[in-house]
Amino acid sequence: MRSTTAWTNTRGTTDLELLPLERRDLRDDDIAVQIDYCGVCHSDLHAIPAIPGLVPGHEFVGTVTEAGPAATRHAVGDRVAIGTVVDSCGACRNCLKGEEIYCLDNWTPTYGGLDRVDGAVMQGGYSREYVLNARFAHPLPHGLAPESAAPLMCAGITVWAPLRKANVGPGSRVAVAGLGGLGHLAVKFAVALGAEVTVISTTADKEQAALALGAKDFILTTASQDAEGAAPLEAKDFASIGKENAENNNRFDLIVDTIPFPHNLDAEILMLDLDGELSLVGLAATTPVNNLLLLIGRKSLSSSAAGGLPATAEMLAFAAKHGISPDVEVVPSSQVKTALDRLEANDVRFRFVLDLSDLD
Amino acid sequence: MRSTTAWTNTRGTTDLELLPLERRDLRDDDIAVQIDYCGVCHSDLHAIPAIPGLVPGHEFVGTVTEAGPAATRHAVGDRVAIGTVVDSCGACRNCLKGEEIYCLDNWTPTYGGLDRVDGAVMQGGYSREYVLNARFAHPLPHGLAPESAAPLMCAGITVWAPLRKANVGPGSRVAVAGLGGLGHLAVKFAVALGAEVTVISTTADKEQAALALGAKDFILTTASQDAEGAAPLEAKDFASIGKENAENNNRFDLIVDTIPFPHNLDAEILMLDLDGELSLVGLAATTPVNNLLLLIGRKSLSSSAAGGLPATAEMLAFAAKHGISPDVEVVPSSQVKTALDRLEANDVRFRFVLDLSDLD
Repeated sequence: MRSTTAWTNTRGTTDLELLPLERRDLRDDDIAVQIDYCGVCHSDLHAIPAIPGLVPGHEFVGTVTEAGPAATRHAVGDRVAIGTVVDSCGACRNCLKGEEIYCLDNWTPTYGGLDRVDGAVMQGGYSREYVLNARFAHPLPHGLAPESAAPLMCAGITVWAPLRKANVGPGSRVAVAGLGGLGHLAVKFAVALGAEVTVISTTADKEQAALALGAKDFILTTASQDAEGAAPLEAKDFASIGKENAENNNRFDLIVDTIPFPHNLDAEILMLDLDGELSLVGLAATTPVNNLLLLIGRKSLSSSAAGGLPATAEMLAFAAKHGISPDVEVVPSSQVKTALDRLEANDVRFRFVLDLSDLD
Repeated sequence: MRSTTAWTNTRGTTDLELLPLERRDLRDDDIAVQIDYCGVCHSDLHAIPAIPGLVPGHEFVGTVTEAGPAATRHAVGDRVAIGTVVDSCGACRNCLKGEEIYCLDNWTPTYGGLDRVDGAVMQGGYSREYVLNARFAHPLPHGLAPESAAPLMCAGITVWAPLRKANVGPGSRVAVAGLGGLGHLAVKFAVALGAEVTVISTTADKEQAALALGAKDFILTTASQDAEGAAPLEAKDFASIGKENAENNNRFDLIVDTIPFPHNLDAEILMLDLDGELSLVGLAATTPVNNLLLLIGRKSLSSSAAGGLPATAEMLAFAAKHGISPDVEVVPSSQVKTALDRLEANDVRFRFVLDLSDLD
């Protein structure tokens, strides 16, 4: 086994403890990566109370330090970027389509699950070293700084996926709900794809930031954070639905909702135009949905995970070509508790990145 | 005003009362229709307790008895079919696309709302006569019997819409959940479109009927009618989701769910393959949705209303060409209470149709 150190959940709180961590010896197709920068994702906050002993972190950039004999894709010294999935079967119909994150046979999450080969618990990137199958490490494109590229590997691909699935381009009317780590990247990508972009937020003082990111409009929503929908509508109300708040109703083809907690979706669904789609990429929970509001306008509610290897490579290339990177606050990894606590308090614009060099 | 009679909700129960009813005098572009047959839709059951004084009925076939001077589309004596929408603005972007049922400016429902011109309360087809704008009456195609064509105008177009939106054809893997008025037509249409069709039902003795309708498989689900979803899944469970009940998971491209009451959707979402869609066309209510199950597989939940005029005409032509009509039980309109009560008890295969000739 290989020895490194990692910020570990020993207390069930954001007060992680720096402990020794063993990584596996390299398999033939593995590489070892010195982690240089790791993003702090809202999923990490969710995972900490749920998984004792966890090392979070699933969006990072590092430097290849060693390669197994069959791991010829990268050379020692190459900069690589790693996201939320680090192995898959490679043989199921989804893997064969390059949708490895939807592998049907025990894909391996970067943390919070088991390695598909030996069943070991996977520990994430709040660490100085990571070992993975070389196929799941992306070469970092020229033009992307490693510290700001890290969050592209989860936040970036997570919002890239719905934009691409909906074929967003010039003429598309896109709204982004929630302007955090995911949301601000969704705005940047959608603007670069040519869409007309609006930000929906409950925080009035994010309007200037939204416009600075390229949004054309800002909707301050007073929507309750209470996830329960409005009272059921009666048949007699059908023809009147959408008449209130008509200014913003039926406006958007796609809303990418990045809000990481359950919230009332009614107002957002009403803002969708005919055949519009509300993509909930921030929420891993059960939420009430008013199906009648979907019915009136033939709308849909969808979600998606990050992305497979080809989509991730496409996203990285697009980001490099268009000069897109997240706005980050880089801190030494020793400040991980502060970063997690400020993230929980929605006090970051827009993504914390840990600099792991303090672990040497 | 014109005088007719209609089965009217005076008691808030299915025990409707036969009362005189006035229809408006014909406008220039109106026709008067003698209603011959009217289907009994589950929406009627929902509407009766909600709307005092209501005459239900929004899928009917009749005979043109009179036409206004500008209503040149139909001749007196023509058989026509009428569905859930009887007027729209004709000028909004949805009307201009032939999506009149999604009109953005006060479309007129066949019953349960207000006429967009004079604001009068609309009363439905459990009556001997109806008056409407001729544009919303479809010529009944040759080859469709009037008594069995009536339910095509709501049940038929309601399930036609998601099949066409999803571009169902040869190779499509379609499941239909719930084998009632909507469901059995969904099976017939999907089979005729070339799909491989499976029926999902909680009623074991519907298997034979499903196979007789052309389904290739039948899934008896024990899914709770309790709409609450399972407990929230933890991050560590991600890779194992879909591994239980693997026989039916990741099987379908589209599930057309016609169940008219809230029910647990988890099992159905798990049955969808990558990019699969669960279309809830029977439900006009708020229901819990486990977004994590949509995320794992990039799935969507959607709904839709019936259809605009072009889609309805297309559906009628397809039904006539392929000899598709609902399996109906025709009863004199005097038996409307029995029909409604048996529908509520799920005791009909598969649609009641009222014969209104007993009102003469």
